[in-house]
Amino acid sequence: MQDFNYRNPTQIIFGRGKSAETGEAVSKLGKSALLVYGKESIKRTGLHGRIQESLASAGVRTVDHGGVKPNPVISHVREGIAKVRAEKLEVVLAVGGGSAMDEAKAIAAGAAVDHDSWLFFTGEKRPGGALPVVTVPTLAATGSEMNGNFVIADSESGLKLGTFSPHCYPAVSILDPELTLTVPLEQTVNGVVDTFSHIMEPYFGGRETDAPVQDRLAEGLMLALFETANRLVPNPQDYRGRADMFWASTVALCGIVQAGRGMAGWENHMLAHSIGALTDAAHGACLAVVMPGWMSYAALMKPEKFDQFAQRVMGVTGAQNGIAQLKLFFSRMGAPVTLGQLGLKEKDIPRIADNVLRSVPGGGSLGRDGMVSVLKLCL
Amino acid sequence: MQDFNYRNPTQIIFGRGKSAETGEAVSKLGKSALLVYGKESIKRTGLHGRIQESLASAGVRTVDHGGVKPNPVISHVREGIAKVRAEKLEVVLAVGGGSAMDEAKAIAAGAAVDHDSWLFFTGEKRPGGALPVVTVPTLAATGSEMNGNFVIADSESGLKLGTFSPHCYPAVSILDPELTLTVPLEQTVNGVVDTFSHIMEPYFGGRETDAPVQDRLAEGLMLALFETANRLVPNPQDYRGRADMFWASTVALCGIVQAGRGMAGWENHMLAHSIGALTDAAHGACLAVVMPGWMSYAALMKPEKFDQFAQRVMGVTGAQNGIAQLKLFFSRMGAPVTLGQLGLKEKDIPRIADNVLRSVPGGGSLGRDGMVSVLKLCL
Repeated sequence: MQDFNYRNPTQIIFGRGKSAETGEAVSKLGKSALLVYGKESIKRTGLHGRIQESLASAGVRTVDHGGVKPNPVISHVREGIAKVRAEKLEVVLAVGGGSAMDEAKAIAAGAAVDHDSWLFFTGEKRPGGALPVVTVPTLAATGSEMNGNFVIADSESGLKLGTFSPHCYPAVSILDPELTLTVPLEQTVNGVVDTFSHIMEPYFGGRETDAPVQDRLAEGLMLALFETANRLVPNPQDYRGRADMFWASTVALCGIVQAGRGMAGWENHMLAHSIGALTDAAHGACLAVVMPGWMSYAALMKPEKFDQFAQRVMGVTGAQNGIAQLKLFFSRMGAPVTLGQLGLKEKDIPRIADNVLRSVPGGGSLGRDGMVSVLKLCL
Repeated sequence: MQDFNYRNPTQIIFGRGKSAETGEAVSKLGKSALLVYGKESIKRTGLHGRIQESLASAGVRTVDHGGVKPNPVISHVREGIAKVRAEKLEVVLAVGGGSAMDEAKAIAAGAAVDHDSWLFFTGEKRPGGALPVVTVPTLAATGSEMNGNFVIADSESGLKLGTFSPHCYPAVSILDPELTLTVPLEQTVNGVVDTFSHIMEPYFGGRETDAPVQDRLAEGLMLALFETANRLVPNPQDYRGRADMFWASTVALCGIVQAGRGMAGWENHMLAHSIGALTDAAHGACLAVVMPGWMSYAALMKPEKFDQFAQRVMGVTGAQNGIAQLKLFFSRMGAPVTLGQLGLKEKDIPRIADNVLRSVPGGGSLGRDGMVSVLKLCL
């Protein structure tokens, strides 16, 4: 195990109907909040109104900040910061998926400094503090509700960059599985794939290979995720399945499973981001295509670990059999598992790799040749 | 899954030699500390001196508070509170095992109120705040380094009572596996048994039986614990095994594995405390005797869960086979597995049960008859 430093101060309020406690939770942190959300659909579903009501009855004044993009952009973050300043708001509240939560963190950190907040993402500055963030996630996938990570894009430069700050853990996240009952099937499947990727990247890609406690926790979480998906995907209205899915996706990226594992390469995310940018396919769909290919490639280097995964998680013998079982599992859920299903052909592979090189110098641990090899295994 | 509220703000600084950072960690919280510890042996080993040096060089003034009993007593807690007040100390630092950490929490909470601190344990008062607590555990077992639980005894009334406060999570715990390299074999084995009990009691005894994510996390942690014990017990000087053991024991009781599981009955701890009081046997030893017996009894009521444990954790088919394997595992490590090995006979069973009734009205979920039945299975 590597040395590590772990602290996750986020309070989780978990349960049926708990989003009604949003006002109470926010009012303990401040008397005014920026309400960050994406599409107008949360108005149609009535969620926006219910959250506003909860806030109003707790005496919290709110300013709306809708229109967060699926890949949140720095220009919209800047607008949010301007609202916080103009209205002297005390809390940043996100209601939505990973994009709303990530943008809320960026606004909370940006409002605490004088310089432009894009400098956090270029690495020129580090957040030195942040307004308290509260999240009410409506989707089980990104884990942003219980970590200090956030990713923001700049439409001018075309860059999409992530950062982490210990100041940006949400103070409170309210996980109300009822809010996820209406998530469409495709997004539900993408959430399963995304959650698997968050467990799998540090599990296979973490620098520390000798981490038996972390291995067993990750394997347990993968098994729980598969069981949950097998129950939930055929029956998306099952509250119990939604609740299990929510908690699995939150634990997956809250840091406790990864602590001591060392830095991972996140090669699958790197490739999936590039494919997403070229095709507009959802993040989860791109990951479902990339992961089995990357695993087949990486298994040549670390066969023991992939044998272990096959045996302990997929219940079969042999690395390649384990990967084949995983691909079958993705496919049965309705996730794409080939580049072809995303409309890409072998001739597109160099373009995907070159697109990675624009944001990741040298293409990370894979390099350009490695990326091409992996992508050929995804055809 | 049941609704739940989870927050664990403890910062973990984990790694080889990290106890040298104690002064730095404490100095961020205050400029003076009460140094709580048990036996004088930490002076002989040089640990006391090294910690004092680290504190002095960080500019932290310290007042010594040694002599914590293996079952810490409220009179000594009161003495600690008096020192904190007289010397206007700002931080409570525990160096030692669960007893030093528990006493530090009691002092930290007691110093923040005017009333007698025993009222926290009788339930007449709840801590409304606490001085910051820092822990440097020297033993991997109790998990007290990352939770808000603490147990204190009153020698006058003979009562031993536990409480929990969200204010009593350590602010920082420094987990330095090197400090545990010299833990004697018997105590190491007791630590393994104790850690297993912390995972097992909520796993089998939690009110919520439908908790697949929690099940898989608990099973993963049990598997990791067994693997670690199999490596560590024959080779107690193995840093790697000590590190894995430390992290497993901390995660076991930090709350993340149990969240959503609902209240557990902690029947094994109840019986083990009674046996410990009557025999002076170590807590881990008493648990090793009680658990297989309780499991055989409880498996009659919840056979599916014990079948699941047998299959997923012990790798055998059938509840009773799984329990037999566990007993064999304890026994091979050198832990006692029968009341006889603790010097108790069948005729002592009523006395053990009656002793429980003094502190747990009615004997909890088991009742007196249930306790007697369980204890007969421990002969």
